Amino acid sequence: MYNFTLQMPTRIHFGKGQISHLSELKESGSKVLLVYGGGSIKRNGIYDAAMKILKEAGLTVEELSGVEPNPKIETVRKGVALCKEDSIDMVLAIGGGSTIDCAKVVAAGAKYDGDAWDLVIHPEKIQGALPIYSVLTLSATGSEMDEFAVISDMTKNEKWGTAAPCLKPEMSVLDPTYTYSVSKKQTAAGTADMISHTFENYFSFETGADVQKRFGESLLKVMFKYGPVALHEPENYDARANLMWAASLAINGLTRVGNAPAWCVHPMEHELSAFYDITHGQGLAILTPVWMEHILSDKTAPIFAEYGRNVWGITAANDMSAAKEAIEKTREFFFTTMELPKNLREVGITEQTHFEKMAEKAAAGCVGCFVPLSKEDIIEIFKAAF
Amino acid sequence: MYNFTLQMPTRIHFGKGQISHLSELKESGSKVLLVYGGGSIKRNGIYDAAMKILKEAGLTVEELSGVEPNPKIETVRKGVALCKEDSIDMVLAIGGGSTIDCAKVVAAGAKYDGDAWDLVIHPEKIQGALPIYSVLTLSATGSEMDEFAVISDMTKNEKWGTAAPCLKPEMSVLDPTYTYSVSKKQTAAGTADMISHTFENYFSFETGADVQKRFGESLLKVMFKYGPVALHEPENYDARANLMWAASLAINGLTRVGNAPAWCVHPMEHELSAFYDITHGQGLAILTPVWMEHILSDKTAPIFAEYGRNVWGITAANDMSAAKEAIEKTREFFFTTMELPKNLREVGITEQTHFEKMAEKAAAGCVGCFVPLSKEDIIEIFKAAF
Repeated sequence: MYNFTLQMPTRIHFGKGQISHLSELKESGSKVLLVYGGGSIKRNGIYDAAMKILKEAGLTVEELSGVEPNPKIETVRKGVALCKEDSIDMVLAIGGGSTIDCAKVVAAGAKYDGDAWDLVIHPEKIQGALPIYSVLTLSATGSEMDEFAVISDMTKNEKWGTAAPCLKPEMSVLDPTYTYSVSKKQTAAGTADMISHTFENYFSFETGADVQKRFGESLLKVMFKYGPVALHEPENYDARANLMWAASLAINGLTRVGNAPAWCVHPMEHELSAFYDITHGQGLAILTPVWMEHILSDKTAPIFAEYGRNVWGITAANDMSAAKEAIEKTREFFFTTMELPKNLREVGITEQTHFEKMAEKAAAGCVGCFVPLSKEDIIEIFKAAF
Repeated sequence: MYNFTLQMPTRIHFGKGQISHLSELKESGSKVLLVYGGGSIKRNGIYDAAMKILKEAGLTVEELSGVEPNPKIETVRKGVALCKEDSIDMVLAIGGGSTIDCAKVVAAGAKYDGDAWDLVIHPEKIQGALPIYSVLTLSATGSEMDEFAVISDMTKNEKWGTAAPCLKPEMSVLDPTYTYSVSKKQTAAGTADMISHTFENYFSFETGADVQKRFGESLLKVMFKYGPVALHEPENYDARANLMWAASLAINGLTRVGNAPAWCVHPMEHELSAFYDITHGQGLAILTPVWMEHILSDKTAPIFAEYGRNVWGITAANDMSAAKEAIEKTREFFFTTMELPKNLREVGITEQTHFEKMAEKAAAGCVGCFVPLSKEDIIEIFKAAF
């Protein structure tokens, strides 16, 4: 097990009705910037419920709405301007990971003199942030309990992740019933996203991080069990609850620290989203089995075999056979069980014009990867996923 | 899954050499009360290393030494007096769970006007505490990352646990090499303690807390794998590291919240320690299999069977058979593999004079237990463990 430092300070209020805890925002001042997306929270009543609690707690609320599924730097800039003009004390995101990511960089931008894009490409410039709160409405990214945020500048086809300890939310409300209305498409994509996070933290050559590996397998078992249940019974509480909690734990550090993994698939997917604005979780699902096959070797077979045996109960004694079976199980889960699009053409990417440029950029993010990927490797993976 | 609130704010610095982070204590002021036990930290060099770092950081240090294995209220009172007389800013425990528990109640006592024993029997009276830091030297209780403390008044044969959010340490240093010198006896007892914590959080009739149950099984697998390794290879880093991290995670809330378990074995063991001052982990190991057998029924068999199948790989299809096999595996692990004392006589309890009084007190702590235990049940368990 490698040395690590870990702190998980976010106060989680989990369960039905926990939105009442929004009254706790008083602890951070009186002026709230409420950040949300396309307005679904107005249709499903969460907006009204939140506003009532905030007002009863004596808080005043400014709003930043219209956060995009791949949140754009222009929206962040608008939020930062609001914070500075109105001396906002704290930021409250109500939505999925995109909304929370946007709120995080707004909160950091409010404490920064330059342009917020600096904070996306130079995380070390984040020197502070307004207190961040969230009410989660989509189980996927884990942003509600982590220090990461991903922001895009579509004018430049750039999508990058940033991170800082001060971006961890003070408090997040996780009410599984808020995800009852999530569509089949988004439920499947969100499940693929959390599975991908777990994979990225799990696959490593470290043999002494048993706690982290067993925890990773635990989360995968939960996701494989409840993903299909949520798809077919959208109001199954236990399915929504387990997916929600598993997604938060998949990326809050618990499975990563001491295991020294290095993310491989996310850097490639970020290029897909940056150039084609596709749904992140769908991109991850398409790339993951192709990536597994591309890097399968005598060296990686034992790692994929361990995953197959401990998560899928594969019994093949030979590592290469067990690894191949595990990859096949993963593929089946994404494309048959979860009904996710199988290749890039199915998500509307009909030509390969940008693959070379995308691969060049992704390769920069794959340095120190579980199995290092060159530009040429990545082009091959994109083509195999086409 | 039940509703819950969870916060795990303790900053963990895990790994070899992480004691250097003691310089961070500056964040809480300048005057430290250093709390430790019988002086082993002076023999193994940890005391000198800590003092050097603290002094270089400009901190002044008062000392409370001689904390007992079952820490006594008299020692807590001494520490509280020191804090009040010398305007101590923070408390630093270097030791195992007993030392950290003592430091916690000292820290709370420093902020309380009455006698510190009040805070043990009335946790709700804990209204604040000095910042608490720890350097862990024994993997067992999880006190380094939780809100609990157990203190005894041996003059009254009383041993009670108290708890408050402000008792969670600010920061804990977990260096697995500091446990290399832990004796076989204490390694086995510590492993039994962490296993018992995991059991107590794991066994429940809740069927929707999959994340928590899978995490509990993960921790048990790690403990069952590495307990014997640490016993026979005391300087095996991965064994000491996995046991250390698993012990912290077993009781920091992660496996308990949402699963609504209720502790059964600890209340019984606390009476054994209160009346006979035995080693806590040994008492837990002796009682656990007897307790399991006592409550085994058609209703509990599926729960023990799930444990057996998921942790021990038991394949019996019939729940009662699988449950019995799981209990037998547990017994074998404690008494054969870990060489722990098998019954109360082996830890020096040679008469049953106090069983009735002990059972009466333990029964008060077993209200709302996984399977409720009456005074008569507990007497039977004590006798079967004799």
